[in-house]
Amino acid sequence: MVQRAEPQDFDRVLSSMCTVPHPAAREAAERFLATNPGDPGTYETVSELEAEAVESLGEITGLTDPTGYVASGGTEANLQAVRIARNRADTDDPNVVAPVHAHFSFTKAADVLGVELRTAPAEGYRANLEAMAELIDDDTVCVVGVAGSTEYGYVDPIPAIAELAHEADALCHVDAAWGGFYLPFTDHAWHFGHADADTMTIDPHKVGQAAVPAGGLLARDGTLLDELAVETPYLESTSQLTLTGTRSGAGVASAVAAMEALWPAGYREQYERSMENARWLADQLRARGHDVVDPELPLVAADLSVPMTDELRARGWRVSKTGAGEMRVVCMPHVTRSMLRSFVADLDWY
Amino acid sequence: MVQRAEPQDFDRVLSSMCTVPHPAAREAAERFLATNPGDPGTYETVSELEAEAVESLGEITGLTDPTGYVASGGTEANLQAVRIARNRADTDDPNVVAPVHAHFSFTKAADVLGVELRTAPAEGYRANLEAMAELIDDDTVCVVGVAGSTEYGYVDPIPAIAELAHEADALCHVDAAWGGFYLPFTDHAWHFGHADADTMTIDPHKVGQAAVPAGGLLARDGTLLDELAVETPYLESTSQLTLTGTRSGAGVASAVAAMEALWPAGYREQYERSMENARWLADQLRARGHDVVDPELPLVAADLSVPMTDELRARGWRVSKTGAGEMRVVCMPHVTRSMLRSFVADLDWY
Repeated sequence: MVQRAEPQDFDRVLSSMCTVPHPAAREAAERFLATNPGDPGTYETVSELEAEAVESLGEITGLTDPTGYVASGGTEANLQAVRIARNRADTDDPNVVAPVHAHFSFTKAADVLGVELRTAPAEGYRANLEAMAELIDDDTVCVVGVAGSTEYGYVDPIPAIAELAHEADALCHVDAAWGGFYLPFTDHAWHFGHADADTMTIDPHKVGQAAVPAGGLLARDGTLLDELAVETPYLESTSQLTLTGTRSGAGVASAVAAMEALWPAGYREQYERSMENARWLADQLRARGHDVVDPELPLVAADLSVPMTDELRARGWRVSKTGAGEMRVVCMPHVTRSMLRSFVADLDWY
Repeated sequence: MVQRAEPQDFDRVLSSMCTVPHPAAREAAERFLATNPGDPGTYETVSELEAEAVESLGEITGLTDPTGYVASGGTEANLQAVRIARNRADTDDPNVVAPVHAHFSFTKAADVLGVELRTAPAEGYRANLEAMAELIDDDTVCVVGVAGSTEYGYVDPIPAIAELAHEADALCHVDAAWGGFYLPFTDHAWHFGHADADTMTIDPHKVGQAAVPAGGLLARDGTLLDELAVETPYLESTSQLTLTGTRSGAGVASAVAAMEALWPAGYREQYERSMENARWLADQLRARGHDVVDPELPLVAADLSVPMTDELRARGWRVSKTGAGEMRVVCMPHVTRSMLRSFVADLDWY
């Protein structure tokens, strides 16, 4: 066991939305490895750190008085947002309306929560508002917008989606799990300050460079979180709103450390570097005659016309594909220009 | 941030069901901090380690051909077991029958999954079979037995509960989240080899001495897990059965390392030491005239007649209370005889 380690050490990983944790984040994770923010009466310091993490996430997302918590990841945060919306609404047959590119965690949430998921076709990789509006009815409890989609890195028109939601007396949830740490340095209207969104997913353990598990759920209003509360006998706290019980103090401490180290200057530099890398890769692929989806955030999808996943994999590359079969390269912080140069050279080899 | 650490370092923690990770578990967690078993195509080694963890958990729980996964913790595992039962059953109005001392994660699961939780009164801290049988009907999808209850550490009659479940064509789920690493060294009938149970929760990050997050969900039959599968476009794997998406490789690697180091001899020694500590503490409290619940596993609950949580807390002790108001001391691996001597001395002080 002691000898085993992941072979690639991230130097050929182009498929992941996780990355190498920032050194300060790693250090904090190791120190808080044996703490449990799920039991705040016993583990007080990490519980205070979680409040700081939520404060920082609020600053990043334009929320003056943020409430929320550090979740196990984006899936939990998305599921909990839908759970808030379902529990708050007064219908026996709840549905959620989302664009077709919403992350598969909404499919999972729908199964778990007994909610119908209705997905609307996209237009130019972004949500089509008319198509979404057609799916909304009196039983719609939540309307989802994606700020940085998993497959193409595109940003939905969040303010308009929030309006759609509120016209239907539904909640608006924004999934910025991946995009949230890149978007503050763009002109997109995506956060609580730009749109009347109710809840948001933003994951420190993705572009935020914290260690897994550190997802983030934010709510504009603390009463929304009350929808999640379950009583906790025998803990010194009296109720719990997280999906899990015991939780990782490592994730929480590491999120605080990463945001202290990187917000805002470090994240800005990272965004600029990653975006330049994405544009460079897009240009290189275009120059070779491939169809490339113009990158909106640091993520490049391209139709390579020949499937080459197996060949690339044999050379150690980890790339993934979109549902439409395009190659998908996620320009995470660990993805450097020199990695991309080697990658393009290997593509040329075929 | 760098300077902050949990003040107590576990040396006065009597309330937690988590503990200091084994050194090998800590080392493995630190090395696999940046891996994600939720993306097995990218992170292959940790994915293989997860299969080993399930193998070991099967050995511990009498399951020859185990299926399951390393969950974020007992709450996820319990919730997923109820989800399996709900999805498999053919009813619009599913209910779960459990003894009253079932962990509050079942309350959470019931809210999340839209399932009715019916709890039956206990008898002598164990499940009362007649009371449970009265609650079972055609819409019962799962009957729960607890092997090591959170409040008293007692073990339900698991074989009889499994019979109740199957008479009703429901699944039997055993919650051994805490007890599972102590029970192999007792005479209790609690596991897959003793009873026709379908699913089980057993958490390496509790008595198993792995780092958080490392819970365990096991199923006797792989088709049960299929009830959880959700399609995963753009990952190299095609479906996902976990509740969360991105997951902690640290937890998985650390579970394998802990079980390699401790199963079975190390866990046996730990059980014996902890059980002796629990008996010693029970005797000390009895000798001082307190009502003590005779410990069945290493957990002592006692009615101290005077509430003293605040005083003990002021002296740095972390103790918790049962729902009935008794003081509750969990004899985890980090709880030594000398800690308990100091604790009793502090109790005498009042």
